[in-house]
Amino acid sequence: MTATIRIIGIDPGLRRTGWGVIETIGHSLRFVESGTVTSDGDMDLASRLCQLHDGLADVVHRLQPDEAAVEQTFVNKDAVATLKLGQARGIAMLVPARAGLRVAEYAPNAVKKAVIGVGHGEKQQIHMMLKVLMPRATFQGNDAADALAIAICHAHHRQSVTGRLAAIMAGG
Amino acid sequence: MTATIRIIGIDPGLRRTGWGVIETIGHSLRFVESGTVTSDGDMDLASRLCQLHDGLADVVHRLQPDEAAVEQTFVNKDAVATLKLGQARGIAMLVPARAGLRVAEYAPNAVKKAVIGVGHGEKQQIHMMLKVLMPRATFQGNDAADALAIAICHAHHRQSVTGRLAAIMAGG
Repeated sequence: MTATIRIIGIDPGLRRTGWGVIETIGHSLRFVESGTVTSDGDMDLASRLCQLHDGLADVVHRLQPDEAAVEQTFVNKDAVATLKLGQARGIAMLVPARAGLRVAEYAPNAVKKAVIGVGHGEKQQIHMMLKVLMPRATFQGNDAADALAIAICHAHHRQSVTGRLAAIMAGG
Repeated sequence: MTATIRIIGIDPGLRRTGWGVIETIGHSLRFVESGTVTSDGDMDLASRLCQLHDGLADVVHRLQPDEAAVEQTFVNKDAVATLKLGQARGIAMLVPARAGLRVAEYAPNAVKKAVIGVGHGEKQQIHMMLKVLMPRATFQGNDAADALAIAICHAHHRQSVTGRLAAIMAGG
Protein backbone atom coordinates (compact mmCIF):
# COMPACT_ATOMS: atom_id res chain seq x y z
CA MET A 1 0.00 0.00 0.00
CA THR A 2 1.35 3.40 -0.99
CA ALA A 3 0.99 6.22 1.48
CA THR A 4 -0.76 9.42 0.55
CA ILE A 5 1.41 12.45 1.16
CA ARG A 6 -0.18 15.86 1.28
CA ILE A 7 2.10 18.69 0.14
CA ILE A 8 1.73 22.46 0.40
CA GLY A 9 3.65 24.56 -2.09
CA ILE A 10 4.17 28.25 -1.27
CA ASP A 11 5.16 31.09 -3.60
CA PRO A 12 6.09 33.92 -1.23
CA GLY A 13 5.48 37.62 -1.85
CA LEU A 14 4.79 40.56 0.46
CA ARG A 15 1.67 41.67 -1.41
CA ARG A 16 0.48 38.23 -2.51
CA THR A 17 1.66 34.83 -1.29
CA GLY A 18 0.30 31.97 -3.36
CA TRP A 19 -0.32 28.50 -1.91
CA GLY A 20 -1.35 25.20 -3.43
CA VAL A 21 -2.06 21.87 -1.77
CA ILE A 22 -1.83 18.55 -3.61
CA GLU A 23 -1.66 14.88 -2.71
CA THR A 24 0.78 12.39 -4.13
CA ILE A 25 -0.05 8.68 -4.08
CA GLY A 26 2.75 6.74 -5.73
CA HIS A 27 3.19 8.49 -9.07
CA SER A 28 -0.25 10.04 -9.25
CA LEU A 29 -1.09 13.57 -8.20
CA ARG A 30 -4.36 14.88 -6.85
CA PHE A 31 -5.35 18.52 -6.57
CA VAL A 32 -6.70 19.55 -3.16
CA GLU A 33 -7.01 23.34 -3.05
CA SER A 34 -5.16 26.53 -3.95
CA GLY A 35 -5.40 30.19 -3.08
CA THR A 36 -3.64 33.44 -2.32
CA VAL A 37 -2.99 35.22 0.96
CA THR A 38 -2.75 38.98 0.53
CA SER A 39 -1.49 41.82 2.70
CA ASP A 40 -2.80 45.37 2.77
CA GLY A 41 -0.29 47.75 1.15
CA ASP A 42 -1.66 50.66 3.22
CA MET A 43 -0.67 49.05 6.50
CA ASP A 44 2.75 49.08 8.13
CA LEU A 45 5.20 46.31 7.37
CA ALA A 46 4.85 44.48 10.70
CA SER A 47 1.06 44.33 10.32
CA ARG A 48 1.39 43.06 6.75
CA LEU A 49 3.72 40.27 7.89
CA CYS A 50 1.11 39.37 10.53
CA GLN A 51 -1.56 39.17 7.82
CA LEU A 52 0.59 36.79 5.76
CA HIS A 53 1.36 34.74 8.86
CA ASP A 54 -2.26 34.42 9.97
CA GLY A 55 -3.53 33.64 6.47
CA LEU A 56 -0.95 30.90 5.89
CA ALA A 57 -1.37 29.51 9.41
CA ASP A 58 -5.12 29.16 8.75
CA VAL A 59 -4.45 27.19 5.55
CA VAL A 60 -1.91 24.89 7.23
CA HIS A 61 -4.23 24.32 10.19
CA ARG A 62 -7.25 23.64 7.99
CA LEU A 63 -5.67 21.43 5.30
CA GLN A 64 -3.05 19.67 7.47
CA PRO A 65 -0.29 19.10 4.90
CA ASP A 66 2.50 16.59 5.69
CA GLU A 67 5.33 18.41 3.93
CA ALA A 68 6.01 21.90 2.58
CA ALA A 69 7.98 23.35 -0.33
CA VAL A 70 8.90 26.98 -0.94
CA GLU A 71 10.40 28.50 -4.05
CA GLN A 72 13.95 29.73 -3.71
CA THR A 73 13.59 33.39 -4.19
CA PHE A 74 14.83 34.84 -7.41
CA VAL A 75 17.52 37.27 -6.36
CA ASN A 76 17.28 40.17 -8.76
CA LYS A 77 19.27 43.35 -8.89
CA ASP A 78 16.79 45.44 -6.94
CA ALA A 79 17.96 45.20 -3.32
CA VAL A 80 14.81 46.85 -1.91
CA ALA A 81 12.59 44.31 -3.69
CA THR A 82 14.88 41.47 -2.57
CA LEU A 83 14.59 42.62 1.04
CA LYS A 84 10.76 42.78 0.86
CA LEU A 85 10.62 39.35 -0.69
CA GLY A 86 13.01 38.05 1.96
CA GLN A 87 10.73 39.27 4.73
CA ALA A 88 7.69 37.59 3.19
CA ARG A 89 9.73 34.47 2.54
CA GLY A 90 10.79 34.32 6.18
CA ILE A 91 7.10 34.12 7.14
CA ALA A 92 6.35 31.56 4.39
CA MET A 93 9.02 29.23 5.79
CA LEU A 94 8.28 29.88 9.45
CA VAL A 95 4.60 28.95 9.37
CA PRO A 96 4.93 25.34 8.13
CA ALA A 97 8.13 24.81 10.16
CA ARG A 98 6.36 25.86 13.37
CA ALA A 99 3.59 23.38 12.49
CA GLY A 100 6.24 20.64 12.50
CA LEU A 101 6.55 20.23 8.71
CA ARG A 102 9.83 19.80 6.89
CA VAL A 103 10.26 22.67 4.45
CA ALA A 104 12.08 21.96 1.18
CA GLU A 105 13.38 24.69 -1.11
CA TYR A 106 13.51 24.58 -4.90
CA ALA A 107 15.06 26.90 -7.42
CA PRO A 108 12.66 28.44 -9.98
CA ASN A 109 14.19 26.49 -12.87
CA ALA A 110 13.79 23.20 -10.96
CA VAL A 111 10.12 24.04 -10.50
CA LYS A 112 9.64 24.79 -14.19
CA LYS A 113 11.51 21.66 -15.17
CA ALA A 114 9.27 19.49 -12.97
CA VAL A 115 6.12 20.88 -14.56
CA ILE A 116 6.94 21.69 -18.18
CA GLY A 117 10.03 19.54 -18.73
CA VAL A 118 12.49 22.36 -19.25
CA GLY A 119 13.97 24.97 -16.91
CA HIS A 120 12.50 27.95 -18.71
CA GLY A 121 9.06 28.75 -20.07
CA GLU A 122 6.12 31.08 -20.03
CA LYS A 123 3.50 31.31 -17.31
CA GLN A 124 0.94 30.09 -19.85
CA GLN A 125 2.85 26.83 -20.32
CA ILE A 126 2.83 26.23 -16.58
CA HIS A 127 -0.93 26.89 -16.37
CA MET A 128 -1.55 24.50 -19.27
CA MET A 129 0.61 21.73 -17.82
CA LEU A 130 -1.01 22.06 -14.40
CA LYS A 131 -4.31 21.27 -16.12
CA VAL A 132 -2.75 18.28 -17.89
CA LEU A 133 -1.15 16.93 -14.71
CA MET A 134 -4.16 17.64 -12.50
CA PRO A 135 -7.35 18.12 -14.56
CA ARG A 136 -9.36 19.09 -11.50
CA ALA A 137 -6.94 21.83 -10.50
CA THR A 138 -8.35 25.32 -10.11
CA PHE A 139 -6.27 28.40 -9.46
CA GLN A 140 -6.77 32.11 -9.74
CA GLY A 141 -3.73 34.05 -10.83
CA ASN A 142 -0.05 33.29 -11.21
CA ASP A 143 0.77 33.07 -7.51
CA ALA A 144 -1.53 30.12 -6.80
CA ALA A 145 -0.44 28.43 -10.06
CA ASP A 146 3.23 28.86 -9.16
CA ALA A 147 2.56 27.46 -5.69
CA LEU A 148 0.95 24.34 -7.22
CA ALA A 149 3.96 23.98 -9.52
CA ILE A 150 6.27 24.12 -6.46
CA ALA A 151 4.19 21.40 -4.76
CA ILE A 152 4.44 19.21 -7.89
CA CYS A 153 8.20 19.79 -8.02
CA HIS A 154 8.47 18.55 -4.44
CA ALA A 155 6.28 15.51 -5.24
CA HIS A 156 8.72 14.55 -8.03
CA HIS A 157 11.91 15.18 -6.09
CA ARG A 158 10.90 13.41 -2.89
CA GLN A 159 10.39 10.14 -4.82
CA SER A 160 13.98 9.63 -5.90
CA VAL A 161 17.15 9.78 -3.85
CA THR A 162 18.82 11.49 -6.78
CA GLY A 163 16.06 14.00 -6.78
CA ARG A 164 16.44 14.56 -3.08
CA LEU A 165 20.14 15.18 -3.45
CA ALA A 166 19.47 17.61 -6.28
CA ALA A 167 17.02 19.39 -4.04
CA ILE A 168 19.47 20.01 -1.24
CA MET A 169 19.81 23.71 -0.98
CA ALA A 170 22.52 25.82 0.59
CA GLY A 171 21.53 26.38 4.20
CA GLY A 172 23.63 29.56 4.52
CA MET B 1 2.75 61.59 36.58
CA THR B 2 4.81 60.38 33.64
CA ALA B 3 4.13 56.92 32.35
CA THR B 4 6.89 54.35 32.12
CA ILE B 5 7.19 52.91 28.62
CA ARG B 6 9.12 49.71 28.12
CA ILE B 7 10.76 49.42 24.70
CA ILE B 8 12.42 46.47 22.96
CA GLY B 9 14.97 47.25 20.26
CA ILE B 10 15.86 44.48 17.83
CA ASP B 11 18.87 44.22 15.53
CA PRO B 12 17.95 41.38 13.15
CA GLY B 13 20.36 38.84 11.67
CA LEU B 14 19.98 35.21 10.59
CA ARG B 15 22.92 34.00 12.67
CA ARG B 16 22.56 36.44 15.54
CA THR B 17 19.63 38.70 16.37
CA GLY B 18 20.40 41.20 19.12
CA TRP B 19 17.76 42.55 21.47
CA GLY B 20 17.76 45.19 24.16
CA VAL B 21 15.01 46.28 26.53
CA ILE B 22 14.94 49.71 28.17
CA GLU B 23 12.42 51.86 29.99
CA THR B 24 11.79 55.52 29.34
CA ILE B 25 10.25 57.71 32.04
CA GLY B 26 9.95 61.26 30.77
CA HIS B 27 13.45 62.06 29.54
CA SER B 28 15.27 59.47 31.59
CA LEU B 29 16.27 56.04 30.38
CA ARG B 30 16.65 52.85 32.38
CA PHE B 31 18.39 49.69 31.22
CA VAL B 32 16.37 46.48 31.71
CA GLU B 33 18.13 43.65 29.91
CA SER B 34 19.87 42.76 26.66
CA GLY B 35 20.90 39.62 24.86
CA THR B 36 21.31 37.76 21.60
CA VAL B 37 19.20 35.04 20.00
CA THR B 38 21.25 32.76 17.78
CA SER B 39 20.40 30.18 15.13
CA ASP B 40 22.37 27.05 14.32
CA GLY B 41 24.14 27.42 10.96
CA ASP B 42 24.15 23.64 10.49
CA MET B 43 20.35 23.46 10.45
CA ASP B 44 18.06 24.14 7.51
CA LEU B 45 16.74 27.65 6.96
CA ALA B 46 13.18 26.96 8.16
CA SER B 47 14.47 25.50 11.44
CA ARG B 48 16.79 28.46 11.94
CA LEU B 49 13.90 30.89 11.47
CA CYS B 50 11.97 28.88 14.07
CA GLN B 51 14.90 29.24 16.50
CA LEU B 52 14.92 33.02 16.04
CA HIS B 53 11.13 33.13 16.41
CA ASP B 54 11.06 31.06 19.59
CA GLY B 55 13.98 32.91 21.18
CA LEU B 56 12.48 36.34 20.51
CA ALA B 57 8.99 35.22 21.51
CA ASP B 58 10.41 34.07 24.87
CA VAL B 59 11.99 37.49 25.45
CA VAL B 60 8.81 39.38 24.52
CA HIS B 61 6.71 37.10 26.69
CA ARG B 62 9.06 37.35 29.66
CA LEU B 63 9.85 41.09 29.60
CA GLN B 64 6.48 42.36 28.29
CA PRO B 65 7.63 45.45 26.36
CA ASP B 66 5.03 48.06 25.35
CA GLU B 67 6.58 49.06 22.04
CA ALA B 68 9.15 47.68 19.61
CA ALA B 69 11.72 49.16 17.24
CA VAL B 70 13.69 47.39 14.52
CA GLU B 71 16.60 48.70 12.52
CA GLN B 72 15.90 49.29 8.85
CA THR B 73 18.13 46.81 7.20
CA PHE B 74 21.17 48.14 5.46
CA VAL B 75 20.69 47.10 1.85
CA ASN B 76 24.13 46.27 0.58
CA LYS B 77 25.20 45.05 -2.83
CA ASP B 78 25.21 41.36 -1.94
CA ALA B 79 21.73 40.13 -2.89
CA VAL B 80 22.18 36.75 -1.16
CA ALA B 81 23.09 38.46 2.11
CA THR B 82 20.20 40.89 1.70
CA LEU B 83 17.78 38.02 1.24
CA LYS B 84 19.05 36.21 4.36
CA LEU B 85 18.78 39.39 6.38
CA GLY B 86 15.28 39.99 5.00
CA GLN B 87 14.16 36.57 6.18
CA ALA B 88 15.51 37.17 9.69
CA ARG B 89 14.03 40.67 9.69
CA GLY B 90 10.60 39.28 8.79
CA ILE B 91 10.71 37.19 11.97
CA ALA B 92 12.05 40.11 14.04
CA MET B 93 9.05 42.23 13.03
CA LEU B 94 6.47 39.44 13.20
CA VAL B 95 7.12 38.42 16.80
CA PRO B 96 6.39 41.78 18.51
CA ALA B 97 3.56 42.54 16.04
CA ARG B 98 1.83 39.25 16.88
CA ALA B 99 2.17 40.16 20.57
CA GLY B 100 0.14 43.31 19.83
CA LEU B 101 3.06 45.77 19.89
CA ARG B 102 3.50 48.60 17.42
CA VAL B 103 6.78 48.10 15.56
CA ALA B 104 8.69 51.23 14.51
CA GLU B 105 11.53 51.16 12.01
CA TYR B 106 14.63 53.35 12.05
CA ALA B 107 17.41 53.81 9.55
CA PRO B 108 20.94 53.01 10.82
CA ASN B 109 22.04 56.66 10.65
CA ALA B 110 19.00 57.74 12.70
CA VAL B 111 20.02 55.20 15.34
CA LYS B 112 23.60 56.45 15.43
CA LYS B 113 22.45 60.05 15.58
CA ALA B 114 20.20 59.31 18.56
CA VAL B 115 23.05 57.73 20.50
CA ILE B 116 26.25 59.52 19.50
CA GLY B 117 24.84 62.75 18.06
CA VAL B 118 25.95 62.20 14.47
CA GLY B 119 24.77 59.81 11.75
CA HIS B 120 28.08 58.01 11.42
CA GLY B 121 30.53 56.59 13.89
CA GLU B 122 32.41 53.55 15.12
CA LYS B 123 30.95 50.67 17.13
CA GLN B 124 33.21 51.71 20.01
CA GLN B 125 31.57 55.14 20.18
CA ILE B 126 28.15 53.52 20.42
CA HIS B 127 29.32 51.21 23.22
CA MET B 128 30.81 54.16 25.11
CA MET B 129 27.70 56.32 24.76
CA LEU B 130 25.44 53.47 25.87
CA LYS B 131 27.42 53.41 29.11
CA VAL B 132 27.09 57.20 29.46
CA LEU B 133 23.33 57.17 28.76
CA MET B 134 22.64 54.06 30.86
CA PRO B 135 25.48 53.37 33.33
CA ARG B 136 23.92 50.09 34.42
CA ALA B 137 23.67 48.74 30.88
CA THR B 138 25.36 45.43 30.16
CA PHE B 139 25.68 43.92 26.72
CA GLN B 140 27.78 41.23 25.15
CA GLY B 141 28.77 41.89 21.58
CA ASN B 142 27.71 44.35 18.90
CA ASP B 143 24.28 42.87 18.24
CA ALA B 144 22.94 43.49 21.75
CA ALA B 145 24.61 46.94 21.83
CA ASP B 146 23.04 47.88 18.49
CA ALA B 147 19.66 46.67 19.71
CA LEU B 148 19.93 48.92 22.79
CA ALA B 149 20.86 51.83 20.52
CA ILE B 150 17.72 51.15 18.43
CA ALA B 151 15.58 51.16 21.59
CA ILE B 152 17.13 54.50 22.65
CA CYS B 153 16.48 55.91 19.19
CA HIS B 154 12.82 54.97 19.54
CA ALA B 155 12.67 56.51 23.03
CA HIS B 156 13.90 59.82 21.57
CA HIS B 157 11.69 59.81 18.51
CA ARG B 158 8.46 58.83 20.22
CA GLN B 159 8.66 61.92 22.47
CA SER B 160 8.32 64.54 19.76
CA VAL B 161 5.81 64.76 16.96
CA THR B 162 8.60 65.97 14.72
CA GLY B 163 10.54 62.92 15.68
CA ARG B 164 7.60 60.68 14.95
CA LEU B 165 7.15 62.17 11.51
CA ALA B 166 10.84 61.77 10.81
CA ALA B 167 10.53 58.14 11.82
CA ILE B 168 7.79 57.31 9.37
CA MET B 169 9.22 54.76 7.04
CA ALA B 170 8.15 53.69 3.58
CA GLY B 171 5.64 50.89 4.05
CA GLY B 172 6.25 49.45 0.59
